[in-house]
Amino acid sequence: MKTHLAPLSRHAGSTLTEQLAARFAQHIRERLMAPGARLPSVRECAQQHGVSPHTVVAAYDQLLAQGLVEARAQRGFYVRAPATPTRRAAAPASSPAATRPPIDATALIRGMFQREGAKPSPGLGILPPDWLDLPALAGALRKASSITNLGALSLQYGDPAGDLRLREALTHKLREFGVQAAASQIISSVGATHGLDIVSRTLLQPGDAVLVDEPGWAVEFARLQRLGMRILPVPRDAEGPDLAVMQRLIEAHKPRMYVTVSVLHNPTGGHLSLARAHRLLTLAQEADLWIVEDDTYAWLAPPHLPRLAALDGLQRTLYVSGFSKVLAPSWRVGFIAAPPALVDALVDTKLLGTLSSPALLEHAVAILLEQGALRRHAERLRERLDGARARTLHLLEAAGCRAVTPPQGLFAWIDVGADTDRLAPTLLDAGWLTAPGSLFHADRRATTLMRVNVASSGEVGFWRALEKARLAQRR
Amino acid sequence: MKTHLAPLSRHAGSTLTEQLAARFAQHIRERLMAPGARLPSVRECAQQHGVSPHTVVAAYDQLLAQGLVEARAQRGFYVRAPATPTRRAAAPASSPAATRPPIDATALIRGMFQREGAKPSPGLGILPPDWLDLPALAGALRKASSITNLGALSLQYGDPAGDLRLREALTHKLREFGVQAAASQIISSVGATHGLDIVSRTLLQPGDAVLVDEPGWAVEFARLQRLGMRILPVPRDAEGPDLAVMQRLIEAHKPRMYVTVSVLHNPTGGHLSLARAHRLLTLAQEADLWIVEDDTYAWLAPPHLPRLAALDGLQRTLYVSGFSKVLAPSWRVGFIAAPPALVDALVDTKLLGTLSSPALLEHAVAILLEQGALRRHAERLRERLDGARARTLHLLEAAGCRAVTPPQGLFAWIDVGADTDRLAPTLLDAGWLTAPGSLFHADRRATTLMRVNVASSGEVGFWRALEKARLAQRR
Repeated sequence: MKTHLAPLSRHAGSTLTEQLAARFAQHIRERLMAPGARLPSVRECAQQHGVSPHTVVAAYDQLLAQGLVEARAQRGFYVRAPATPTRRAAAPASSPAATRPPIDATALIRGMFQREGAKPSPGLGILPPDWLDLPALAGALRKASSITNLGALSLQYGDPAGDLRLREALTHKLREFGVQAAASQIISSVGATHGLDIVSRTLLQPGDAVLVDEPGWAVEFARLQRLGMRILPVPRDAEGPDLAVMQRLIEAHKPRMYVTVSVLHNPTGGHLSLARAHRLLTLAQEADLWIVEDDTYAWLAPPHLPRLAALDGLQRTLYVSGFSKVLAPSWRVGFIAAPPALVDALVDTKLLGTLSSPALLEHAVAILLEQGALRRHAERLRERLDGARARTLHLLEAAGCRAVTPPQGLFAWIDVGADTDRLAPTLLDAGWLTAPGSLFHADRRATTLMRVNVASSGEVGFWRALEKARLAQRR
Repeated sequence: MKTHLAPLSRHAGSTLTEQLAARFAQHIRERLMAPGARLPSVRECAQQHGVSPHTVVAAYDQLLAQGLVEARAQRGFYVRAPATPTRRAAAPASSPAATRPPIDATALIRGMFQREGAKPSPGLGILPPDWLDLPALAGALRKASSITNLGALSLQYGDPAGDLRLREALTHKLREFGVQAAASQIISSVGATHGLDIVSRTLLQPGDAVLVDEPGWAVEFARLQRLGMRILPVPRDAEGPDLAVMQRLIEAHKPRMYVTVSVLHNPTGGHLSLARAHRLLTLAQEADLWIVEDDTYAWLAPPHLPRLAALDGLQRTLYVSGFSKVLAPSWRVGFIAAPPALVDALVDTKLLGTLSSPALLEHAVAILLEQGALRRHAERLRERLDGARARTLHLLEAAGCRAVTPPQGLFAWIDVGADTDRLAPTLLDAGWLTAPGSLFHADRRATTLMRVNVASSGEVGFWRALEKARLAQRR
């Protein structure tokens, strides 16, 4: 993924077979083709790369000899699970290998890294670095690490619940969303991901059933599955989750928790309506269900949109968010706002898992909140996103694609008219990391849908590559 | 714990009964008396605080009315488990409530925080802040956050395995311990605690059996128990674990992993002998056991002491350490050095739990390693600790206590000749947080042992308070 892969060349120092085998081997090692993923058919691969079927067969034989793939009679070649010494890693996944999609959740996250010099990635869920406000970060960090602050923020463990200045600044900030949380109800975390992890580890036990939105975020599914939970997908429409389905799932499985995104839902961009929010809370009350509201994209939305944590008064809702999307991905500052009765148990989970979290960076974020720098920066981002979204909408329609829901925030959720699991490796070869629709479904079923980051999909080249890959698939 | 608790006063604005009840209530709320802990008998409490038995009974009645304690017929008063909405938190602990000790592991960790203005804490496992090298930290942080570095270390997620500069610096540093680890085998973590957590979550499944040293570190026991593991304690002597016991436990329980401290063992201070290390590795090989070597105190020991990771060449040993003890507790920089075949799975666990870790602080630590600042600082610390240890040895002997093993590094493991679980609340009332021996036993059994931090036990007042508390207990 580090560089654009050039087409195979007849004039390179190695044969076409070797080049083709090396390319697949690289994808497999970088986990951009997951164990169990099926390699293209010989005919398909030959067409894609403009080589003879004989070359493809020879390349697949090399991969077989290297132990990277396995042949299944009458069915083709599949990526092998790596020899692993752990039972967990060796445990069979819930879906049969033959139907597993080419890119798995952790491969997509790995794609967020190591991007230096690479093309923009329409598949990623973050803003390009040059959209962020480095001078503001530098200023806040300088203040936080002044000689009067640095000792207190470095030489002791600080407060186990997190830097008090951050938690107080958040108390004020959350009021803009209608969420009333005292500083004593807020626990900092190493990014929102860690917040979600702390919550799950505190409230759930292996085997518990958990309701999730579908479509929804693959990393959340992967984390819950890794923790041993049973995932119950609830279809999501423009107003929120389908409560009739949720009711049936509650009766059948007695879930403990519902994890959801109310604002700028990933990937559809939709918002929970007030009416649905109210009915949802009533249902959660009857079923004694914890609600985990992931508000990671909060800052990119107009502040007035309803949050469950606001309606509920943080009674059975745990609100999780962070600053990786709008301030500094690598600072890893996030937080949980929780019902008072849960705070102690959540802090215990944090203590046993990471002891505490870096107070220095939390303090710097607090300064950015206090100064209004986050507010101003977020306003500018929203404006810039509006422009990028309009451009992406134009480009996607010109490329024969269709937005499934009205794009909002960072994402467009689009139908490209071809199996996006099969498009993904071809686009990757051309240097474009995409997020196929299967990533957003708990059962990883193939779809013609794709999530597109509007801030990273403004290049015509991406849409041309998409059209070309789609055409090759149809041949 | 924030301040020294004054003796009860007949001239305060509240009655003696109210003052006594408030004091117990505070301990219970701060978890310095854990659910299930028994309150002192009425007679004992009356003596301790110099009040009448009637006052104690009235105070206990107030606590009863507040729902903080419960009375058990013929047996006295016990701290109630808080009303908790989670099944996990409500699950019964492994030991019966009546035998549970007064201070639990997370309470001890909480004691590491909120120490501003408090007395030194002989119970804690960290160096006092004024022993650390703030100017060196400030310089390294300034370099890491220079305008040329800050963007790369803030605006992208960085490398999922951690900052490359840190991992390369560690490759060199670990060679001093005889540990050969390529940068690609090193994964950064949010402190050593997080490293241990990542390892356990990657290699274990709930219900797995895990061997641990006994005595050993309470927080490690608590984490493993929280993850649903079965803990198998292996007695530890001056040379290392008792391999005959280990062999029997392996045959009976088929454990997956052994977690151990080879150098400056917590709490005994002992080192694993070379002969024992070799036999241990042979046994681990036969039993197909992972070894997790926690080398948190590495920097406070002479570098030549043998590590399992060095003997084993990181084949079945995972080496975990960090910089909280010697550089900056609140920066939370730690790492794992692992067998190559495990790296991908460990990084996946890290991704799903915290996504990544703060590259900026990792980079600053790398600078301190490269400059030799850590080496020089650690040398100074070792010298200063030698002096503090000699003083503590003198004081503890004068106070009628005895070192059970020759003190080394940060700790002395001492016998005070009285039940340290019962001494702890009295000493806490006098402002001294201690670490009773029960914290270091998996079954939390009461002992006359105590772990003392030699850097925080140089005040005569602490030993006087200990003598007084012991005397009161004997009456």
